Amino acid sequence: MYNGLSMHKNGVLITFEGPEGSGKSTHIRLLAQYLKSRGRSVFVTRQPGGSAIAAPLRTILLQTGEGLTALAELFLYEADRAQHVDELIRPALTRGAVVLCDRFTDSTVAYQGFGRGLDLQLVRSLNAAAAQGVKPQLTILLDVPVERGLRLASKAKRGSDRLERAGLAFHRRVRRGFLALAAREPRRFRLVRQQIDPAATQARIRSAVDRYLKLA
Amino acid sequence: MYNGLSMHKNGVLITFEGPEGSGKSTHIRLLAQYLKSRGRSVFVTRQPGGSAIAAPLRTILLQTGEGLTALAELFLYEADRAQHVDELIRPALTRGAVVLCDRFTDSTVAYQGFGRGLDLQLVRSLNAAAAQGVKPQLTILLDVPVERGLRLASKAKRGSDRLERAGLAFHRRVRRGFLALAAREPRRFRLVRQQIDPAATQARIRSAVDRYLKLA
Repeated sequence: MYNGLSMHKNGVLITFEGPEGSGKSTHIRLLAQYLKSRGRSVFVTRQPGGSAIAAPLRTILLQTGEGLTALAELFLYEADRAQHVDELIRPALTRGAVVLCDRFTDSTVAYQGFGRGLDLQLVRSLNAAAAQGVKPQLTILLDVPVERGLRLASKAKRGSDRLERAGLAFHRRVRRGFLALAAREPRRFRLVRQQIDPAATQARIRSAVDRYLKLA
Repeated sequence: MYNGLSMHKNGVLITFEGPEGSGKSTHIRLLAQYLKSRGRSVFVTRQPGGSAIAAPLRTILLQTGEGLTALAELFLYEADRAQHVDELIRPALTRGAVVLCDRFTDSTVAYQGFGRGLDLQLVRSLNAAAAQGVKPQLTILLDVPVERGLRLASKAKRGSDRLERAGLAFHRRVRRGFLALAAREPRRFRLVRQQIDPAATQARIRSAVDRYLKLA
């Protein structure tokens, strides 16, 4: 008989989404420090890039895949997601961690659906198959205007990768996609616009996460 | 107005399926020589392994992927298929070639569905998305008993790869899967049982292909 008690605490999956240069990795790092200082168990990961097969996949996706078709790219992201969920995200949730994931299913809808123009229904159905029932409870959409974001992204890295070279029109479609997703699911999404002062952006993120974790 | 004439000759896609050690690559090579000697334009390819992204994928799939989950593996095969269809198979068909492909969608149903136990409907729907309307007109199923096939396969290569180490029970399910697929689509499949003399096996394949191409 299930009595409402469980051997496993329930973890929380918080995803960070947004266009290039929105500062996701910096803000995830700062948020993780903050949550740990408050005694939370935190697991930070990213997609693509978190799982055992991710390194060779990431190489194909970001560097060598100049001839890669949009559909093949979609399947590669889903392969990474399927592996990532089984290998890292679900175990961390089972341990009761707050999982902070840099990009998840929404990025695939924004980039492969809105950006590359693949059928949105196809993208959603592959996302669902790969995520195997794991859904973000809270999604922070870090928004930044496209030109500013690309400038920041190419400053942060040495060069620009395949995605960043895809052109302004592509990145505008991606940003529109993210905003459309946030409008469609206002309960799950928190839209945080990048502030000139990163501390101000981080404060908004902390407040949204604090509020969510208090209720959760 | 479509008048029944076309600037493009229509190519023919012939796929070769079957368990490990069924002799597909040898028989494809012999069949290609034969068809070329009869004046046919022939394009030989294989899956995984034919496209620009296939080499790093094949490495993950066959060698380094010990921790690879069944679902991630499925998505990787579909990524390879999507790229392979756009980059190689469809252009060859458009040129009017007889395309001989070593493994295609049926292998994914047999290995990932019957072998690994993934949902057959999921496998079929991902196959359809990746193949983008390209379907084999004729499929030669080269059948061989599992123990004999594995013995032949490990003799042909230096070592055994991840698939061959998957165990007898797995390979029995795969073989049963292929036979079930052939029974389900008797018009597309030709079941060719491996003969002790390879020349006898090849003669049966040639006769099946000749009959098909005369009618096509």
